[in-house]
Amino acid sequence: MPTPTLPQLTLVLGGARSGKSLYAERLVTSQPGPWAYIATAEAFDGEMDERIKLHKRRRSSGWVQHETPLDIADILSNRTSELVSLVDCLTLWLSNLMHAERPIPDATDKLIAALSKRIAPCVIVSNEVGLGIVPDNALARAFRDEAGRLNQKIAATADKVVFVAAGLPLTLKG
Amino acid sequence: MPTPTLPQLTLVLGGARSGKSLYAERLVTSQPGPWAYIATAEAFDGEMDERIKLHKRRRSSGWVQHETPLDIADILSNRTSELVSLVDCLTLWLSNLMHAERPIPDATDKLIAALSKRIAPCVIVSNEVGLGIVPDNALARAFRDEAGRLNQKIAATADKVVFVAAGLPLTLKG
Amino acid sequence: MPTPTLPQLTLVLGGARSGKSLYAERLVTSQPGPWAYIATAEAFDGEMDERIKLHKRRRSSGWVQHETPLDIADILSNRTSELVSLVDCLTLWLSNLMHAERPIPDATDKLIAALSKRIAPCVIVSNEVGLGIVPDNALARAFRDEAGRLNQKIAATADKVVFVAAGLPLTLKG
Repeated sequence: MPTPTLPQLTLVLGGARSGKSLYAERLVTSQPGPWAYIATAEAFDGEMDERIKLHKRRRSSGWVQHETPLDIADILSNRTSELVSLVDCLTLWLSNLMHAERPIPDATDKLIAALSKRIAPCVIVSNEVGLGIVPDNALARAFRDEAGRLNQKIAATADKVVFVAAGLPLTLKG
Repeated sequence: MPTPTLPQLTLVLGGARSGKSLYAERLVTSQPGPWAYIATAEAFDGEMDERIKLHKRRRSSGWVQHETPLDIADILSNRTSELVSLVDCLTLWLSNLMHAERPIPDATDKLIAALSKRIAPCVIVSNEVGLGIVPDNALARAFRDEAGRLNQKIAATADKVVFVAAGLPLTLKG
Repeated sequence: MPTPTLPQLTLVLGGARSGKSLYAERLVTSQPGPWAYIATAEAFDGEMDERIKLHKRRRSSGWVQHETPLDIADILSNRTSELVSLVDCLTLWLSNLMHAERPIPDATDKLIAALSKRIAPCVIVSNEVGLGIVPDNALARAFRDEAGRLNQKIAATADKVVFVAAGLPLTLKG
């Protein structure tokens, strides 16, 4: 395991199928359990459903599971505050916020406030989505911009930021 | 600020909304002003207009502003040679060159020659666009290829190259 | 040249036009030749044909060329086992496998077994394709997922993993 102790807030950033979730899970389970898993995914379709099942199978017992597409702030500051917690993932949460037409800056501020109130460490998984060609449609561009801004804000408040590629971590901060 | 002194040429590479422009601005303003800001963006539409305004608001006084979609070489070697200068961004300049059907290798050589003649340091911002799925259309693929080649050439001539993700710098060179 | 000696397996990861192939070629030719070049590209169209020619022109004599869209495992474990070898690239190989409807996990296991049997070092070039916006179509998403998984598996077995951006290497492992 990379670290014997976990800082209060770790951001694990990476691309699709980069191994970021597994890396983040190992950070969390390097600490004494039980641990909280805060999933922002909803099983809209078969493809997503399959992924969620895969992630669930991989996690051993010892996890308290919370599935919430939007209200992660409340869960982080109240229900899981004393458990080492994993949020997987922030990019899907952003997508859910945009679908629900919730104001992003408010939700981001609320999340950062919730994180600062926690007792136990937290690891947040997020996608880097801005390293391809400019997307054709305006919605995808808007999402890409919001995702970049959100990652910057969480990275600024995080104690440690790790970029994962091909399952391998690269420390950006901390 | 990351560096007390600035090397002659710094390339700041990053994705969309990665915080690369802000990082580059801070490199420049860590030096005594006034500073030159060479913007390659043209306000074609409302979306771009909004971004340019945001970038302008962020910069304090002390900046000399140059807006030029194509002829950055001339401005860098003549009009701003003695000012610490920021070019934001190279990828948009490439896009402008391709729209204007100017030969890319010539323009690149001219830019590199202009940079070598400067007296004061220069920071260049550029996008990394090659880390997504292969684009469907040939023009986007051609653009992606040219952007990659341009980044390689500028990186080879730069004293320092920094990759920015989530607002955090990672040194690739220097 | 970056390394005086080459580990048994090096994975060179990067985006389109990142300079990853040239970097990998230099790793190989830093060793005594002759060297084996295992190309997975097939010249389907003019665009690809042009790229292959460019890559060929760049390589000096001293290379033994193998062009194979699918059966790289056999070539690596048998015909090139005693030559320092370059595979360029793994992502195209994956694409070829998917077109030919070959099972990916089997082919990956076979490749890893073949690599473990080699006598001389090997350098494998692969694309990172997961750092853009989620692609619109399901096939591109499936490809992105498989490419990420494949990179993770090869990275786990590699002695050294390097990420190349703008022609500059960043060590992820080794």
